[in-house]
Amino acid sequence: MFDVIKGDLEQLEEHLLQDVASPEADITEIGSHLITSGGKRIRPALCLLAAHGGPAFDLARVLPLAAALELIHTASLVHDDVIDAADTRRGAATVNAKWGNQIAILSGDFVFARAFALVAEQNYGGFVLKALADLVGNLSVGEIIQDRNVYQASRDVADYYARIQKKTADFLETCCALGGEVSGMTRADVEQLAAYGHAIGMAFQITDDLLDILETEAQTGKPAGNDIRQGILTLPVIRAMEVSPDAAELERIVTDPEMTEEMAQRALTIVRATDGVERARAKADEYLATAKASLPASLPADIREAFVMVADFIGDREF
Amino acid sequence: MFDVIKGDLEQLEEHLLQDVASPEADITEIGSHLITSGGKRIRPALCLLAAHGGPAFDLARVLPLAAALELIHTASLVHDDVIDAADTRRGAATVNAKWGNQIAILSGDFVFARAFALVAEQNYGGFVLKALADLVGNLSVGEIIQDRNVYQASRDVADYYARIQKKTADFLETCCALGGEVSGMTRADVEQLAAYGHAIGMAFQITDDLLDILETEAQTGKPAGNDIRQGILTLPVIRAMEVSPDAAELERIVTDPEMTEEMAQRALTIVRATDGVERARAKADEYLATAKASLPASLPADIREAFVMVADFIGDREF
Repeated sequence: MFDVIKGDLEQLEEHLLQDVASPEADITEIGSHLITSGGKRIRPALCLLAAHGGPAFDLARVLPLAAALELIHTASLVHDDVIDAADTRRGAATVNAKWGNQIAILSGDFVFARAFALVAEQNYGGFVLKALADLVGNLSVGEIIQDRNVYQASRDVADYYARIQKKTADFLETCCALGGEVSGMTRADVEQLAAYGHAIGMAFQITDDLLDILETEAQTGKPAGNDIRQGILTLPVIRAMEVSPDAAELERIVTDPEMTEEMAQRALTIVRATDGVERARAKADEYLATAKASLPASLPADIREAFVMVADFIGDREF
Repeated sequence: MFDVIKGDLEQLEEHLLQDVASPEADITEIGSHLITSGGKRIRPALCLLAAHGGPAFDLARVLPLAAALELIHTASLVHDDVIDAADTRRGAATVNAKWGNQIAILSGDFVFARAFALVAEQNYGGFVLKALADLVGNLSVGEIIQDRNVYQASRDVADYYARIQKKTADFLETCCALGGEVSGMTRADVEQLAAYGHAIGMAFQITDDLLDILETEAQTGKPAGNDIRQGILTLPVIRAMEVSPDAAELERIVTDPEMTEEMAQRALTIVRATDGVERARAKADEYLATAKASLPASLPADIREAFVMVADFIGDREF
């Protein structure tokens, strides 16, 4: 998908490993584990693609920014895994599983700090720095709101959209906007790329959420219904609470923190029997169309094509 | 002690409350709890004093920096309290006790992010930002090293000094240096103030550690020997392991993660019977003398006097 930045992404891996290295071997070990455990690198990829689209592209200048974005994402996942008491991520042991919660909390802080140190060294200016600081702030606020509202069956679709915006769309928007910004794109083009990033972010999270309803353990290695089990309501569930003949039963299940596995499976069955998944997929497609329409006219053909492929990939993905 | 910056510190409290405010009432509530639960504000006070000593003092310019330093300290305490499972701090409930570990981890991230957002808005330049990012990184690294080495009776005094430098001295050094920096102090004067901050930081932590050996529950509301109980070796304990006739027994106790309260009390008795506390106090006094000798000659008399009072306060404090 990312042929045009394949070389950049290889350099990024090297960069990330160096970013988390420390004179303390313990720290380097934890950092390497985090970086080599993978990830799709969608955030730095969007930043690099956007930078390629600007008139003053300079890989040496944008690479630390792309790395900082991935480090912020990584740090936030490390803290999420402590919060969710998760044992594995992407098939590898989480930091909390391998080294304990204490080290995981501190490692997350360390990785956040390294991201800001990278940005400090580059003098990107207040705009970039403020965007990154606000991003971390909003990610935390979004998670706090989500945590405080679990097992409360809000049927408010606006709450759902506000939540996935803070969780995902704001981040992808920032990646696109800042990549364009440091490559000297015009303000108008930066804003259009930001709109693209926002829209694919919304589509990405909606798709993620509906796959959690649909997927089987054989496909993904994890059981479906994680969100329901954690008391987090997603678009198909909210729809089912409106239209299902079993809406009352569904609501009882999703608001019960003592939910058994049997109850979670029953909730999935109720949701799958409605048009909730289908409508969520249509909503994701709507966002992807918006995304493509938002791409600035000034983009070189190969970069535009790559951005379109990202959108198509999000629409097509089945896991 | 801080008459010369009394008005500044009052404004700081207002600033801090606004810094942690959010459109989300839940967040504002947690933030207000953190700020109103107090703290000695030693870090922003040092920054403000240093700024007053520079030729281009501007309160509006330095106040956000002073606030950012206190927010970084606050965020790191919030995470420390999760790590230590602490119920109270400064007599108030910790965030983890009041809202749970999940919210506490995320609140710490939020407060870190707010600190960097403040700095981003002010365009202090790469020097200030890099110093703050490195500070957060070093705080985390210092804690990780400490956590991984608990209950290991290293007799290496150099390890101890390296640890308290990362934990405390680097922070106070940064507060002094950056306050001078944003007030247009010469590089040489900034470096002298940094040396002052480093030295009082070392003295402060040594004193803190020896008070943990000496103090009684009546004085402080918490039992003595917290460090020993947590497997953290401080200067008096390291000395006792060298000179005490009961050194072997002491070593057995402090390396035992299953240590009982009786064992901890016995360790305290062994340490108190040596010259460990007395020698640690002498070492702290040595640092305080270095601190005073490091103050730049260019400082106005009232500012110099305040810096000397800070050093004397650290030397005299008994709790």
